[in-house]
Amino acid sequence: MMTLYGYWRSSASYRVRIALGLKGIDVIHKPVNLKAGEQLLPSHTELNAQALVPVLELEDGSRLTQSLAILDYLEEAYPKPSLLPSDPVKCAQIRAASQIIAADIAPIQNLRVLKYIRAEHGQGDEGVKAWAAHWIAEGFRALESLASKSNQTFFLRDEPGYFECCLIPQIYNARRFGVNMNSFPNLLHLDEIVKYHPAFVAAHPSNQNDMPSN
Amino acid sequence: MMTLYGYWRSSASYRVRIALGLKGIDVIHKPVNLKAGEQLLPSHTELNAQALVPVLELEDGSRLTQSLAILDYLEEAYPKPSLLPSDPVKCAQIRAASQIIAADIAPIQNLRVLKYIRAEHGQGDEGVKAWAAHWIAEGFRALESLASKSNQTFFLRDEPGYFECCLIPQIYNARRFGVNMNSFPNLLHLDEIVKYHPAFVAAHPSNQNDMPSN
Repeated sequence: MMTLYGYWRSSASYRVRIALGLKGIDVIHKPVNLKAGEQLLPSHTELNAQALVPVLELEDGSRLTQSLAILDYLEEAYPKPSLLPSDPVKCAQIRAASQIIAADIAPIQNLRVLKYIRAEHGQGDEGVKAWAAHWIAEGFRALESLASKSNQTFFLRDEPGYFECCLIPQIYNARRFGVNMNSFPNLLHLDEIVKYHPAFVAAHPSNQNDMPSN
Repeated sequence: MMTLYGYWRSSASYRVRIALGLKGIDVIHKPVNLKAGEQLLPSHTELNAQALVPVLELEDGSRLTQSLAILDYLEEAYPKPSLLPSDPVKCAQIRAASQIIAADIAPIQNLRVLKYIRAEHGQGDEGVKAWAAHWIAEGFRALESLASKSNQTFFLRDEPGYFECCLIPQIYNARRFGVNMNSFPNLLHLDEIVKYHPAFVAAHPSNQNDMPSN
Protein backbone atom coordinates (compact mmCIF):
# COMPACT_ATOMS: atom_id res chain seq x y z
CA MET A 1 0.00 0.00 0.00
CA MET A 2 1.20 3.56 -0.68
CA THR A 3 1.82 6.02 2.16
CA LEU A 4 0.73 9.66 2.10
CA TYR A 5 2.63 12.08 4.31
CA GLY A 6 0.37 15.07 4.80
CA TYR A 7 -1.19 17.54 7.18
CA TRP A 8 -4.89 17.95 7.87
CA ARG A 9 -5.06 21.63 6.90
CA SER A 10 -2.47 21.66 4.08
CA SER A 11 -4.40 22.40 0.91
CA ALA A 12 -1.85 20.53 -1.22
CA SER A 13 -2.35 17.41 0.95
CA TYR A 14 -6.11 17.90 0.72
CA ARG A 15 -5.90 17.93 -3.11
CA VAL A 16 -4.14 14.57 -3.14
CA ARG A 17 -6.58 13.08 -0.62
CA ILE A 18 -9.50 14.00 -2.89
CA ALA A 19 -7.78 12.51 -5.95
CA LEU A 20 -7.08 9.26 -4.10
CA GLY A 21 -10.71 9.14 -3.01
CA LEU A 22 -12.03 9.80 -6.52
CA LYS A 23 -9.92 6.93 -7.80
CA GLY A 24 -10.83 4.66 -4.88
CA ILE A 25 -7.23 4.17 -3.77
CA ASP A 26 -6.54 3.38 -0.12
CA VAL A 27 -3.27 4.64 1.37
CA ILE A 28 -1.64 4.73 4.79
CA HIS A 29 -1.84 8.28 6.15
CA LYS A 30 1.18 9.55 8.08
CA PRO A 31 0.66 13.03 9.51
CA VAL A 32 3.48 15.58 9.55
CA ASN A 33 2.69 18.32 12.07
CA LEU A 34 3.52 21.52 10.20
CA LYS A 35 2.57 23.68 13.16
CA ALA A 36 5.13 21.89 15.34
CA GLY A 37 7.77 22.16 12.57
CA GLU A 38 8.03 18.41 11.92
CA GLN A 39 8.52 19.11 8.20
CA LEU A 40 11.95 20.58 9.01
CA LEU A 41 13.24 17.45 10.80
CA PRO A 42 15.80 15.31 8.93
CA SER A 43 13.33 12.41 9.03
CA HIS A 44 11.08 14.48 6.75
CA THR A 45 13.61 16.37 4.62
CA GLU A 46 15.00 12.95 3.71
CA LEU A 47 11.60 12.25 2.15
CA ASN A 48 11.26 15.72 0.62
CA ALA A 49 14.23 18.04 0.21
CA GLN A 50 11.77 20.91 0.01
CA ALA A 51 10.51 20.31 3.60
CA LEU A 52 6.89 20.44 2.47
CA VAL A 53 3.92 18.10 2.33
CA PRO A 54 2.46 16.09 0.66
CA VAL A 55 4.81 13.22 -0.12
CA LEU A 56 3.39 10.06 -1.67
CA GLU A 57 5.60 7.06 -1.03
CA LEU A 58 5.02 4.23 -3.48
CA GLU A 59 5.25 0.55 -2.58
CA ASP A 60 8.73 0.32 -4.12
CA GLY A 61 9.92 3.19 -1.87
CA SER A 62 9.92 5.89 -4.60
CA ARG A 63 8.78 9.24 -3.28
CA LEU A 64 6.67 11.70 -5.18
CA THR A 65 6.21 15.33 -4.18
CA GLN A 66 4.26 18.35 -5.45
CA SER A 67 0.53 17.76 -5.46
CA LEU A 68 -0.09 18.25 -9.19
CA ALA A 69 2.80 15.95 -10.12
CA ILE A 70 1.20 13.38 -7.79
CA LEU A 71 -2.21 13.88 -9.45
CA ASP A 72 -0.59 13.36 -12.86
CA TYR A 73 1.12 10.21 -11.61
CA LEU A 74 -2.14 8.83 -10.22
CA GLU A 75 -3.87 9.62 -13.50
CA GLU A 76 -1.25 7.65 -15.41
CA ALA A 77 -0.86 4.73 -13.00
CA TYR A 78 -4.59 4.40 -12.15
CA PRO A 79 -6.36 5.75 -15.24
CA LYS A 80 -9.95 4.90 -14.20
CA PRO A 81 -11.92 6.87 -13.20
CA SER A 82 -10.10 9.65 -14.99
CA LEU A 83 -9.40 13.08 -13.50
CA LEU A 84 -8.74 14.70 -16.89
CA PRO A 85 -10.58 14.57 -20.24
CA SER A 86 -9.01 12.93 -23.26
CA ASP A 87 -9.35 16.03 -25.47
CA PRO A 88 -5.92 17.71 -25.29
CA VAL A 89 -7.24 21.30 -25.47
CA LYS A 90 -9.81 20.79 -22.70
CA CYS A 91 -7.17 18.94 -20.73
CA ALA A 92 -4.80 21.92 -21.05
CA GLN A 93 -7.55 24.32 -20.01
CA ILE A 94 -8.34 22.26 -16.91
CA ARG A 95 -4.65 22.03 -16.05
CA ALA A 96 -4.28 25.79 -16.50
CA ALA A 97 -7.20 26.56 -14.17
CA SER A 98 -5.72 24.13 -11.64
CA GLN A 99 -2.36 25.88 -11.88
CA ILE A 100 -3.97 29.24 -11.20
CA ILE A 101 -4.64 27.71 -7.78
CA ALA A 102 -1.57 25.54 -7.32
CA ALA A 103 0.93 28.08 -8.65
CA ASP A 104 -0.57 31.56 -8.52
CA ILE A 105 -2.65 31.45 -5.34
CA ALA A 106 -1.62 28.78 -2.84
CA PRO A 107 2.19 29.21 -2.74
CA ILE A 108 1.86 32.96 -2.12
CA GLN A 109 -0.27 32.42 0.95
CA ASN A 110 1.61 29.35 2.16
CA LEU A 111 2.61 29.24 5.83
CA ARG A 112 6.31 29.90 5.09
CA VAL A 113 5.45 33.06 3.15
CA LEU A 114 3.11 34.31 5.88
CA LYS A 115 5.91 33.75 8.41
CA TYR A 116 8.27 35.82 6.24
CA ILE A 117 5.96 38.82 5.91
CA ARG A 118 5.39 38.75 9.69
CA ALA A 119 9.11 38.57 10.49
CA GLU A 120 10.61 40.71 7.73
CA HIS A 121 7.83 43.11 6.73
CA GLY A 122 6.42 43.56 10.25
CA GLN A 123 2.93 42.45 9.26
CA GLY A 124 0.45 41.56 12.02
CA ASP A 125 -2.67 39.42 11.86
CA GLU A 126 -4.53 42.01 9.84
CA GLY A 127 -1.77 42.45 7.26
CA VAL A 128 -1.40 38.69 6.93
CA LYS A 129 -5.12 38.23 6.41
CA ALA A 130 -5.26 41.06 3.84
CA TRP A 131 -2.31 39.54 1.97
CA ALA A 132 -3.81 36.05 1.77
CA ALA A 133 -7.28 37.34 0.90
CA HIS A 134 -5.84 39.58 -1.85
CA TRP A 135 -4.10 36.76 -3.73
CA ILE A 136 -7.00 34.35 -3.29
CA ALA A 137 -9.53 36.89 -4.58
CA GLU A 138 -7.32 37.85 -7.53
CA GLY A 139 -7.03 34.22 -8.61
CA PHE A 140 -10.70 33.50 -7.94
CA ARG A 141 -11.76 36.42 -10.16
CA ALA A 142 -9.99 34.76 -13.10
CA LEU A 143 -11.37 31.33 -12.18
CA GLU A 144 -14.91 32.68 -11.78
CA SER A 145 -14.71 34.11 -15.28
CA LEU A 146 -13.50 30.77 -16.65
CA ALA A 147 -16.07 28.75 -14.69
CA SER A 148 -18.91 30.99 -15.87
CA LYS A 149 -18.14 29.91 -19.47
CA SER A 150 -18.12 26.18 -18.74
CA ASN A 151 -21.51 24.75 -19.61
CA GLN A 152 -20.96 21.39 -17.94
CA THR A 153 -21.78 20.35 -14.38
CA PHE A 154 -18.16 20.58 -13.32
CA PHE A 155 -15.37 22.65 -14.88
CA LEU A 156 -15.34 21.46 -18.51
CA ARG A 157 -16.44 17.99 -17.34
CA ASP A 158 -19.50 16.12 -16.11
CA GLU A 159 -17.70 14.57 -13.16
CA PRO A 160 -15.45 16.21 -10.58
CA GLY A 161 -11.76 15.78 -11.38
CA TYR A 162 -8.36 17.46 -11.47
CA PHE A 163 -9.67 21.01 -11.16
CA GLU A 164 -12.10 20.28 -8.33
CA CYS A 165 -9.25 18.55 -6.43
CA CYS A 166 -7.58 21.98 -6.42
CA LEU A 167 -10.60 24.25 -6.09
CA ILE A 168 -12.34 22.76 -3.05
CA PRO A 169 -9.26 22.97 -0.77
CA GLN A 170 -8.66 26.53 -1.96
CA ILE A 171 -12.23 27.51 -1.08
CA TYR A 172 -11.78 25.96 2.38
CA ASN A 173 -8.66 28.09 2.68
CA ALA A 174 -10.37 31.22 1.35
CA ARG A 175 -12.95 30.99 4.12
CA ARG A 176 -10.18 30.82 6.72
CA PHE A 177 -8.89 34.13 5.42
CA GLY A 178 -12.32 35.76 5.32
CA VAL A 179 -12.79 35.86 1.53
CA ASN A 180 -16.48 36.39 0.72
CA MET A 181 -17.34 33.49 -1.56
CA ASN A 182 -20.61 35.13 -2.63
CA SER A 183 -18.53 37.13 -5.10
CA PHE A 184 -17.73 33.89 -6.91
CA PRO A 185 -21.11 32.17 -7.49
CA ASN A 186 -19.86 29.67 -10.06
CA LEU A 187 -17.04 28.52 -7.81
CA LEU A 188 -19.34 28.39 -4.81
CA HIS A 189 -21.77 26.25 -6.79
CA LEU A 190 -19.02 23.68 -7.47
CA ASP A 191 -18.27 23.61 -3.74
CA GLU A 192 -21.93 23.00 -2.99
CA ILE A 193 -22.37 20.11 -5.42
CA VAL A 194 -19.59 18.08 -3.82
CA LYS A 195 -20.66 18.79 -0.25
CA TYR A 196 -21.86 15.20 0.24
CA HIS A 197 -19.59 13.51 -2.29
CA PRO A 198 -17.83 10.76 -0.34
CA ALA A 199 -14.34 11.43 -1.78
CA PHE A 200 -14.60 15.11 -0.86
CA VAL A 201 -16.07 14.39 2.57
CA ALA A 202 -13.37 11.84 3.43
CA ALA A 203 -10.63 14.26 2.33
CA HIS A 204 -11.97 17.24 4.29
CA PRO A 205 -9.57 18.62 6.94
CA SER A 206 -12.13 18.14 9.69
CA ASN A 207 -12.21 14.41 8.94
CA GLN A 208 -8.46 13.87 9.35
CA ASN A 209 -7.09 12.06 12.39
CA ASP A 210 -4.40 14.67 12.95
CA MET A 211 -6.86 17.56 13.30
CA PRO A 212 -6.45 18.92 16.84
CA SER A 213 -9.46 18.04 18.96
CA ASN A 214 -9.84 21.42 20.69
CA MET B 1 0.52 28.67 -37.32
CA MET B 2 0.11 29.12 -33.56
CA THR B 3 0.63 32.51 -31.90
CA LEU B 4 2.53 33.00 -28.64
CA TYR B 5 1.68 36.09 -26.61
CA GLY B 6 4.65 36.69 -24.33
CA TYR B 7 7.16 39.13 -22.93
CA TRP B 8 10.92 38.99 -23.41
CA ARG B 9 11.77 38.85 -19.70
CA SER B 10 8.79 36.81 -18.43
CA SER B 11 10.22 33.53 -17.23
CA ALA B 12 6.96 31.70 -17.94
CA SER B 13 7.09 32.93 -21.58
CA TYR B 14 10.76 31.93 -21.74
CA ARG B 15 9.86 28.36 -20.62
CA VAL B 16 7.36 28.01 -23.47
CA ARG B 17 9.81 29.48 -26.02
CA ILE B 18 12.40 26.84 -25.06
CA ALA B 19 9.84 24.02 -25.32
CA LEU B 20 8.73 25.20 -28.76
CA GLY B 21 12.38 25.34 -29.84
CA LEU B 22 13.14 21.85 -28.50
CA LYS B 23 10.20 20.50 -30.49
CA GLY B 24 11.08 22.52 -33.58
CA ILE B 25 7.72 24.32 -33.69
CA ASP B 26 7.55 27.77 -35.30
CA VAL B 27 5.02 30.23 -33.92
CA ILE B 28 4.10 33.87 -34.46
CA HIS B 29 5.40 35.91 -31.51
CA LYS B 30 3.16 38.73 -30.28
CA PRO B 31 4.76 40.75 -27.49
CA VAL B 32 2.70 42.04 -24.56
CA ASN B 33 4.55 44.85 -22.80
CA LEU B 34 4.18 44.00 -19.11
CA LYS B 35 6.15 47.04 -18.05
CA ALA B 36 3.68 49.30 -19.87
CA GLY B 37 0.72 47.39 -18.37
CA GLU B 38 -0.53 46.00 -21.69
CA GLN B 39 -1.54 42.75 -19.93
CA LEU B 40 -4.31 44.69 -18.14
CA LEU B 41 -5.94 45.97 -21.34
CA PRO B 42 -9.25 44.34 -22.37
CA SER B 43 -7.55 43.17 -25.60
CA HIS B 44 -5.35 40.97 -23.44
CA THR B 45 -7.70 39.99 -20.61
CA GLU B 46 -10.01 38.69 -23.33
CA LEU B 47 -7.23 36.24 -24.20
CA ASN B 48 -6.36 35.49 -20.59
CA ALA B 49 -8.71 36.33 -17.72
CA GLN B 50 -5.70 36.21 -15.42
CA ALA B 51 -3.99 39.15 -17.18
CA LEU B 52 -0.72 37.26 -17.42
CA VAL B 53 1.53 35.89 -20.14
CA PRO B 54 2.13 33.52 -21.85
CA VAL B 55 -0.94 32.70 -23.93
CA LEU B 56 -0.62 30.18 -26.75
CA GLU B 57 -3.32 30.64 -29.36
CA LEU B 58 -3.90 27.54 -31.46
CA GLU B 59 -4.82 27.61 -35.14
CA ASP B 60 -8.48 26.95 -34.30
CA GLY B 61 -8.52 29.98 -31.99
CA SER B 62 -8.39 28.02 -28.69
CA ARG B 63 -6.26 29.74 -26.10
CA LEU B 64 -4.00 28.01 -23.64
CA THR B 65 -2.51 29.65 -20.57
CA GLN B 66 -0.18 28.67 -17.72
CA SER B 67 3.24 27.65 -18.97
CA LEU B 68 3.26 24.09 -17.60
CA ALA B 69 -0.21 23.38 -18.99
CA ILE B 70 1.13 24.62 -22.35
CA LEU B 71 4.19 22.36 -22.06
CA ASP B 72 1.90 19.40 -21.33
CA TYR B 73 -0.26 20.29 -24.32
CA LEU B 74 2.78 20.50 -26.61
CA GLU B 75 4.02 17.17 -25.29
CA GLU B 76 0.71 15.55 -26.14
CA ALA B 77 0.09 17.26 -29.48
CA TYR B 78 3.70 17.09 -30.70
CA PRO B 79 5.16 14.06 -28.91
CA LYS B 80 8.55 13.98 -30.65
CA PRO B 81 11.11 14.91 -29.44
CA SER B 82 9.72 14.28 -25.99
CA LEU B 83 10.12 16.62 -23.04
CA LEU B 84 9.26 13.94 -20.46
CA PRO B 85 10.36 10.31 -20.01
CA SER B 86 7.90 7.46 -20.45
CA ASP B 87 8.58 6.00 -16.99
CA PRO B 88 5.74 7.36 -14.81
CA VAL B 89 7.81 7.70 -11.61
CA LYS B 90 10.65 9.58 -13.34
CA CYS B 91 8.06 11.65 -15.11
CA ALA B 92 6.44 12.59 -11.78
CA GLN B 93 9.84 13.46 -10.30
CA ILE B 94 10.66 15.74 -13.24
CA ARG B 95 7.26 17.38 -13.02
CA ALA B 96 7.71 17.89 -9.26
CA ALA B 97 11.10 19.56 -9.71
CA SER B 98 9.59 21.76 -12.42
CA GLN B 99 6.76 22.73 -10.09
CA ILE B 100 9.23 23.74 -7.40
CA ILE B 101 10.13 26.47 -9.89
CA ALA B 102 6.76 27.16 -11.50
CA ALA B 103 4.73 27.06 -8.27
CA ASP B 104 7.02 27.61 -5.30
CA ILE B 105 9.56 30.09 -6.66
CA ALA B 106 8.39 32.09 -9.67
CA PRO B 107 4.89 33.19 -8.58
CA ILE B 108 6.20 34.54 -5.27
CA GLN B 109 8.68 36.82 -7.01
CA ASN B 110 6.40 37.71 -9.89
CA LEU B 111 6.08 41.38 -10.81
CA ARG B 112 2.57 41.72 -9.32
CA VAL B 113 3.78 40.41 -5.95
CA LEU B 114 6.81 42.70 -5.95
CA LYS B 115 4.48 45.62 -6.66
CA TYR B 116 2.32 44.63 -3.68
CA ILE B 117 5.18 44.44 -1.18
CA ARG B 118 6.40 47.85 -2.38
CA ALA B 119 2.96 49.45 -2.10
CA GLU B 120 1.53 47.68 0.95
CA HIS B 121 4.57 46.63 2.98
CA GLY B 122 6.68 49.71 2.21
CA GLN B 123 9.55 47.69 0.77
CA GLY B 124 12.21 49.50 -1.26
CA ASP B 125 14.65 48.13 -3.82
CA GLU B 126 16.67 46.36 -1.18
CA GLY B 127 13.67 44.69 0.46
CA VAL B 128 12.36 43.61 -2.93
CA LYS B 129 15.71 42.12 -3.90
CA ALA B 130 16.04 40.30 -0.55
CA TRP B 131 12.51 38.90 -0.94
CA ALA B 132 13.08 37.58 -4.46
CA ALA B 133 16.54 36.21 -3.64
CA HIS B 134 15.19 34.46 -0.51
CA TRP B 135 12.52 32.45 -2.35
CA ILE B 136 14.78 31.64 -5.27
CA ALA B 137 17.56 30.41 -2.98
CA GLU B 138 15.15 28.36 -0.87
CA GLY B 139 13.80 26.58 -3.95
CA PHE B 140 17.25 26.19 -5.49
CA ARG B 141 18.56 24.48 -2.33
CA ALA B 142 15.93 21.75 -2.76
CA LEU B 143 16.59 21.52 -6.51
CA GLU B 144 20.37 21.37 -6.01
CA SER B 145 19.87 18.44 -3.64
CA LEU B 146 17.66 16.67 -6.22
CA ALA B 147 20.00 17.46 -9.12
CA SER B 148 23.03 16.16 -7.20
CA LYS B 149 21.37 12.72 -7.10
CA SER B 150 20.60 12.57 -10.82
CA ASN B 151 23.34 10.62 -12.55
CA GLN B 152 22.32 11.56 -16.07
CA THR B 153 23.49 14.48 -18.17
CA PHE B 154 20.30 16.42 -17.58
CA PHE B 155 17.84 16.06 -14.70
CA LEU B 156 16.87 12.36 -14.83
CA ARG B 157 17.30 12.44 -18.62
CA ASP B 158 20.00 12.44 -21.29
CA GLU B 159 18.46 15.30 -23.23
CA PRO B 160 17.17 18.65 -21.98
CA GLY B 161 13.41 18.67 -21.48
CA TYR B 162 10.56 19.79 -19.27
CA PHE B 163 12.70 20.57 -16.23
CA GLU B 164 15.35 22.49 -18.13
CA CYS B 165 12.59 24.58 -19.77
CA CYS B 166 11.81 25.77 -16.22
CA LEU B 167 15.30 25.86 -14.72
CA ILE B 168 17.16 27.98 -17.26
CA PRO B 169 14.69 30.92 -17.12
CA GLN B 170 14.75 30.75 -13.32
CA ILE B 171 18.55 30.94 -13.29
CA TYR B 172 18.38 33.97 -15.61
CA ASN B 173 15.98 35.48 -13.12
CA ALA B 174 18.12 34.52 -10.11
CA ARG B 175 21.04 36.46 -11.56
CA ARG B 176 18.83 39.56 -11.93
CA PHE B 177 18.16 39.39 -8.19
CA GLY B 178 21.79 38.83 -7.25
CA VAL B 179 21.57 35.16 -6.22
CA ASN B 180 25.06 33.63 -6.17
CA MET B 181 24.76 30.63 -8.47
CA ASN B 182 28.07 29.19 -7.21
CA SER B 183 26.11 27.82 -4.26
CA PHE B 184 24.24 25.58 -6.71
CA PRO B 185 26.95 23.82 -8.77
CA ASN B 186 24.69 21.13 -10.21
CA LEU B 187 22.13 23.66 -11.39
CA LEU B 188 24.86 25.92 -12.75
CA HIS B 189 26.29 22.99 -14.68
CA LEU B 190 22.95 22.44 -16.41
CA ASP B 191 22.90 26.11 -17.36
CA GLU B 192 26.39 25.80 -18.81
CA ILE B 193 25.66 22.75 -20.95
CA VAL B 194 22.81 24.47 -22.80
CA LYS B 195 24.70 27.74 -23.30
CA TYR B 196 25.07 27.11 -27.05
CA HIS B 197 22.02 24.87 -27.53
CA PRO B 198 20.03 26.51 -30.34
CA ALA B 199 16.61 26.15 -28.68
CA PHE B 200 17.89 27.79 -25.50
CA VAL B 201 19.78 30.51 -27.39
CA ALA B 202 16.74 31.39 -29.53
CA ALA B 203 14.50 31.56 -26.45
CA HIS B 204 16.84 33.76 -24.40
CA PRO B 205 15.36 37.14 -23.39
CA SER B 206 18.21 39.02 -25.06
CA ASN B 207 17.25 37.45 -28.38
CA GLN B 208 13.62 38.60 -28.33
CA ASN B 209 12.45 41.39 -30.60
CA ASP B 210 10.60 43.15 -27.79
CA MET B 211 13.71 43.56 -25.61
CA PRO B 212 14.27 47.30 -25.21
CA SER B 213 17.35 48.40 -27.14
CA ASN B 214 18.84 50.66 -24.45
